[in-house]
Amino acid sequence: MSTRQERLLARVALTWLAEPGTWSVYRLVRRLGPIAALELLLDGGAPEEKLRATVAARRAGGDARAVASDALARADRLGARIVCPEDEEWPHQLADLHRLRLPEASRRVDTETAPPLCFWVRGQARLDEALDRSVAVVGARAATPYGLHVATELGYGLADRNWTVVSGGAFGIDAAAHRGALSGGGLTVGVLACGVDRPYPMGNAALFDRIAETGLLLSEWPPGADPLRPRFLIRNRVIAAGTAGTVLVEASARSGATQTMNRAIAIGRRAMVVPGPVTSAMSVGAHEVLREQPDARLVTGVAHVLEEVGRIGADLAPAARGPERPADLLDDEATLVLEAFPRRGVIGVEPLASRAGVDVRTALRKLSMLEQLTLVLRRDGGYALAPPPKPGSPAARGRPDG
Amino acid sequence: MSTRQERLLARVALTWLAEPGTWSVYRLVRRLGPIAALELLLDGGAPEEKLRATVAARRAGGDARAVASDALARADRLGARIVCPEDEEWPHQLADLHRLRLPEASRRVDTETAPPLCFWVRGQARLDEALDRSVAVVGARAATPYGLHVATELGYGLADRNWTVVSGGAFGIDAAAHRGALSGGGLTVGVLACGVDRPYPMGNAALFDRIAETGLLLSEWPPGADPLRPRFLIRNRVIAAGTAGTVLVEASARSGATQTMNRAIAIGRRAMVVPGPVTSAMSVGAHEVLREQPDARLVTGVAHVLEEVGRIGADLAPAARGPERPADLLDDEATLVLEAFPRRGVIGVEPLASRAGVDVRTALRKLSMLEQLTLVLRRDGGYALAPPPKPGSPAARGRPDG
Repeated sequence: MSTRQERLLARVALTWLAEPGTWSVYRLVRRLGPIAALELLLDGGAPEEKLRATVAARRAGGDARAVASDALARADRLGARIVCPEDEEWPHQLADLHRLRLPEASRRVDTETAPPLCFWVRGQARLDEALDRSVAVVGARAATPYGLHVATELGYGLADRNWTVVSGGAFGIDAAAHRGALSGGGLTVGVLACGVDRPYPMGNAALFDRIAETGLLLSEWPPGADPLRPRFLIRNRVIAAGTAGTVLVEASARSGATQTMNRAIAIGRRAMVVPGPVTSAMSVGAHEVLREQPDARLVTGVAHVLEEVGRIGADLAPAARGPERPADLLDDEATLVLEAFPRRGVIGVEPLASRAGVDVRTALRKLSMLEQLTLVLRRDGGYALAPPPKPGSPAARGRPDG
Repeated sequence: MSTRQERLLARVALTWLAEPGTWSVYRLVRRLGPIAALELLLDGGAPEEKLRATVAARRAGGDARAVASDALARADRLGARIVCPEDEEWPHQLADLHRLRLPEASRRVDTETAPPLCFWVRGQARLDEALDRSVAVVGARAATPYGLHVATELGYGLADRNWTVVSGGAFGIDAAAHRGALSGGGLTVGVLACGVDRPYPMGNAALFDRIAETGLLLSEWPPGADPLRPRFLIRNRVIAAGTAGTVLVEASARSGATQTMNRAIAIGRRAMVVPGPVTSAMSVGAHEVLREQPDARLVTGVAHVLEEVGRIGADLAPAARGPERPADLLDDEATLVLEAFPRRGVIGVEPLASRAGVDVRTALRKLSMLEQLTLVLRRDGGYALAPPPKPGSPAARGRPDG
């Protein structure tokens, strides 16, 4: 018998034992549920050597359940809550992060990118509703006055049309986008790479308080967690996957913001880029994305942004998100087999099994299940991915993933 | 017996009787040669009512041959020369303007766009050699300091790598590109919409003299001709077709420069656009082209430009230009039939004849000729365009058009 509180505690303990986004932990939770997954890890039974070492190192620093229990108590005192995939307000579009495991995408995405196990949330709005019509605005910390102006205008314009603005908590473009949204009287969501009680950077402390009053501050890390450098890249996948599209406003060459763009594109979100003067170092990254990503679209203002995300909202979103996806029903091995498929074309069972890392008999058993779910089709020479189901069709029904 | 001088005189008289770029005149010259075409027009025998009226109106203002003779004498005094398709230095890539007559292109191109009949030239360089490795830089007259800076840098950088810069003679981007090329010690070519002895605008008079000293000034209009408004749009096709690609630096919404870009794309030239601040009215047209023309490429400097035109120079240019094209051998009706073909797919003889404006018997006769020249292929249900011949193959040989 497991109560909600026990499941919460287990999820929190799991994110303390290994960083959020770790695929091996995520897969364990899907297969066993959070409580059994935690027990397995604490017993030293992690399926991968690397994860076993990580867990052992963490356990030396404290008792996972006690740490989690303290974090929950601390959140309670702060007025923060925790939101899990079992909760009604969970944003199920995050499951699209599965697509980042496709072989094509994984070459471009260097950090662990499994969907989140839980969020710590400050603010009153429902998380799913806040993100339902949302656009991310991301860019450089060392933004120019031009970039700050454009980001503020975008934030204001989106808020004015009832779209939620999502960004990080940094100086520069992030803060400008939040301020624009607040001045437009709209919802704005700050996704942090540290505890929701840690104003980082300190200079944005007042801004975070204002965001939490009307919008939401969220984080995968427990209260008190430090803003460690790799956490920003892990955090970026939530910004990319939680929104209908991401707008890049100013970025230097190969910045973290361009990584968010690549992830947005890889999971089928709209990628939009505001150009700038070619003489500005702060637009080099933006122009790079426009030159190298055929799917990135040049936008010059909120009208262009709404044209992009309006389209996906109206036509594609019901198929691409929401809890009712047969893929959410799959066990771990079936997921591996499904994700080993090439996006296009037919693949034989043996190469498929080898890509999935399962034996051929397992692959055949899982393929038969995937075929029944109409996720794959039998073809001459092997199997191919089925075209995505139409929204509302029986094949599109299921239940939320764990 | 016709001497070069008589043919020159006839071509000049023809451009006086009807504006350069008039397809009906160009077709007559191809069919009859310039001398007989002039005689036919002067006898009131123009094949189209509209052209007959134009010629009649012009004839009321003077004797065409006498006007042409005066223009040649005036050019002689100026040190200007006239260059015709029969001359060795004719830039045969202009024949690619034929593609503007394809149905898809003609919807976008509003002004008459036949290849030129002749050029008036000031300067010592050979015209074909000057244009052989050339890039057009075009943009707004009312350019901002940003645009002027970028155009000057591009002009300098192209000159520095031994590429010729081609532009108009306007204030703003045109002048900045020429000045950059001159300061880089390179060839620069000014394509004017008035006589090569008319410094328009007057403020660029000293610049024109400097261009003519080391580069070339050219015009389709005789010395003394006024820079009438429609002539700029007619002139633009020479900038688009004479170069390997066109770079747009700053343009307001729906400017003439974006028309040059559309033409460049329609005839297979590289179309490149320098972005700018989205807050600048002078970059609105540039961003429009980048959003609406999938073939337009964002460039931020000379390295990107060379990447684009270097590619076409090395791989595609030999096939796309040069005098030796079987299409240049075609008579007028065969040209009409060839140009009536859809770019892709098969068309029946009757719809083809109707699109070409010829009867079915004529269409069949011409199709048999086009088939022998391997320009079209017989297919189930009609005919289709043949793939372009490889450079140097027997089918790619011929002689210059008239």
